[in-house]
Amino acid sequence: MSELRFDPLKKIWCVIASERSRRPEDFLVKRIPESHGNLSVCPFCKGNESRSGQEIFSLKDTDGSWLTRVVPNRYPAFRIEGDLKRTAHGMYDCVTAIGAHEVVIETPKHHVNPGTYTDKILKSVFITFRERVNDLKKDMRFRYIMPFKNYGMLAGANIEHPHSQIIALPVTPDIVKTKLRSALEHFQMKERCIFCDMLTQEKEENSRIVYENQDFVAFCPFASSLPFETLIFPKRHSHCFSKTDDSQMSSLADMVREVFSRLYKCLENPPLNMVVHTSPPVVKRPSQPGYWQSIEQDFHWHIEITPRLSGIAGFESGTGFHINPVSPEDAAQFLKGAV
Amino acid sequence: MSELRFDPLKKIWCVIASERSRRPEDFLVKRIPESHGNLSVCPFCKGNESRSGQEIFSLKDTDGSWLTRVVPNRYPAFRIEGDLKRTAHGMYDCVTAIGAHEVVIETPKHHVNPGTYTDKILKSVFITFRERVNDLKKDMRFRYIMPFKNYGMLAGANIEHPHSQIIALPVTPDIVKTKLRSALEHFQMKERCIFCDMLTQEKEENSRIVYENQDFVAFCPFASSLPFETLIFPKRHSHCFSKTDDSQMSSLADMVREVFSRLYKCLENPPLNMVVHTSPPVVKRPSQPGYWQSIEQDFHWHIEITPRLSGIAGFESGTGFHINPVSPEDAAQFLKGAV
Repeated sequence: MSELRFDPLKKIWCVIASERSRRPEDFLVKRIPESHGNLSVCPFCKGNESRSGQEIFSLKDTDGSWLTRVVPNRYPAFRIEGDLKRTAHGMYDCVTAIGAHEVVIETPKHHVNPGTYTDKILKSVFITFRERVNDLKKDMRFRYIMPFKNYGMLAGANIEHPHSQIIALPVTPDIVKTKLRSALEHFQMKERCIFCDMLTQEKEENSRIVYENQDFVAFCPFASSLPFETLIFPKRHSHCFSKTDDSQMSSLADMVREVFSRLYKCLENPPLNMVVHTSPPVVKRPSQPGYWQSIEQDFHWHIEITPRLSGIAGFESGTGFHINPVSPEDAAQFLKGAV
Repeated sequence: MSELRFDPLKKIWCVIASERSRRPEDFLVKRIPESHGNLSVCPFCKGNESRSGQEIFSLKDTDGSWLTRVVPNRYPAFRIEGDLKRTAHGMYDCVTAIGAHEVVIETPKHHVNPGTYTDKILKSVFITFRERVNDLKKDMRFRYIMPFKNYGMLAGANIEHPHSQIIALPVTPDIVKTKLRSALEHFQMKERCIFCDMLTQEKEENSRIVYENQDFVAFCPFASSLPFETLIFPKRHSHCFSKTDDSQMSSLADMVREVFSRLYKCLENPPLNMVVHTSPPVVKRPSQPGYWQSIEQDFHWHIEITPRLSGIAGFESGTGFHINPVSPEDAAQFLKGAV
């Protein structure tokens, strides 16, 4: 079974999921072209439900047909079955890759892309995320639950039918810990939320805001690592995405549709990633090492949307930071104008 | 001029180098094919020296012809001219992008790739790195100096002629600080070098070693983030790459040629990155905040070689860690056998 391994130098975990590969030759650089596939065999299309594995959840329309379906990832990096074991391997550390790895089929329709999503599709997707996160939170082994979307091959998608994923992890990723720690330190020092402070400054400056509606603001962050990186913050402070009510979900659908369609227009249907960052599940054993908790005041859930326009090169891999050739101010102006 | 910006959440720097772009449309996803270019216009080919900008350094062969040349990057992310200014922008932080960004032309020959490098080429390249690092170290504004190579478009190269780069930065990257901190903590606790300990374990286990010669060991690290990631450690403890003598450089050339040619054979000429990590320059003002120093005992210079076989997807971007589909044990066996 696959393993999480900890790099004692970089202090980061990685997953060794060698069972996903057959032979090293499978990883030769070859880019399969975007095909408009044979829909009769697409396991995510309507009518082919039996091909997609045991259904975990589905959201139904008023007529009883499905809007979204959640099924297990066929090549899971994390599995729900088994024991959570933490072991030493000489000076290295291992944890069994216990967790969950689910696929959210976003719509029965095959030929939809982020630029043509409707509010109805997006609202269904986010409600599905919420329901699954709330369910996965009950499993005390999970320290972080993250819904995310890969669109386009360069952003890691290898299935054409519109889908996203939800992953539950037995460790809190270092990048998440850093964010939680930053937010906590800010709150401890100032008794204010760092995300709320960012929102205040963004609204005052008004040079990086892409779109704003009743409940959300989208902006290109001041320190954008990548061109056209866009953050979505709820205006009302909340640490927990999965507490978002249905009315806010309508607002979120409007927001994400606007951002997706602007990226689609400006960047000609770019590959992109979307990640929902919410506070880690509240654990009943706060004294246990490795668990991170956040309280209502010190974290603020948010969404990161990143078009993938270039790869990682030696500079980025060596320093951990990116050279971004487009300022967020330019990116925001460009996206703002794309209506 | 471009700027470094600090993300207060992720605690990482990024470079906003918007002057490198003309318009956002320039960043549409388009992959220019590898061409075998018109050599009469290649600015890095022999005979076209006047096209490559003011020469910073060159290494000469016994007959007086050049083996390597160092020229300024035509689109530098960091510039040597100007004042190093650290400013606040509301709650955000900026630093002017003072530094150096040089290109090392690795050979006068255009049609050479990592799989066909000779020891002579590689030894010249590493000696050139050493000379440039030693020179750049004299500039007290620089906190980190890093030679690296991008090969192939998917690894960030957009020039075909064999070349690498050297960058000098006014901040110590967080990923480097983390490594330095890990090494320092290990040394403070155990009075042993963490890299030397890793080398001992790797040699004892002998399941991830790819190649070993008199002075160096190449292995796939236990917690490999990416398939076929390979580390090269000098066997003799040294924190500083730029103190490597000419005899060790011959040995290093042999080592890198072996690793490159094995990757070339196994993965059919993959795009790849190579990064040289050495201790930060020793600064005469150790009490100044932000400077990291390492002493001879607590850091161990090393080289990271990473084939780029897949991109970054939502999981990696959200968690900061990768799902690696090939175990380092399998990767090492595969590379070891490729002779």
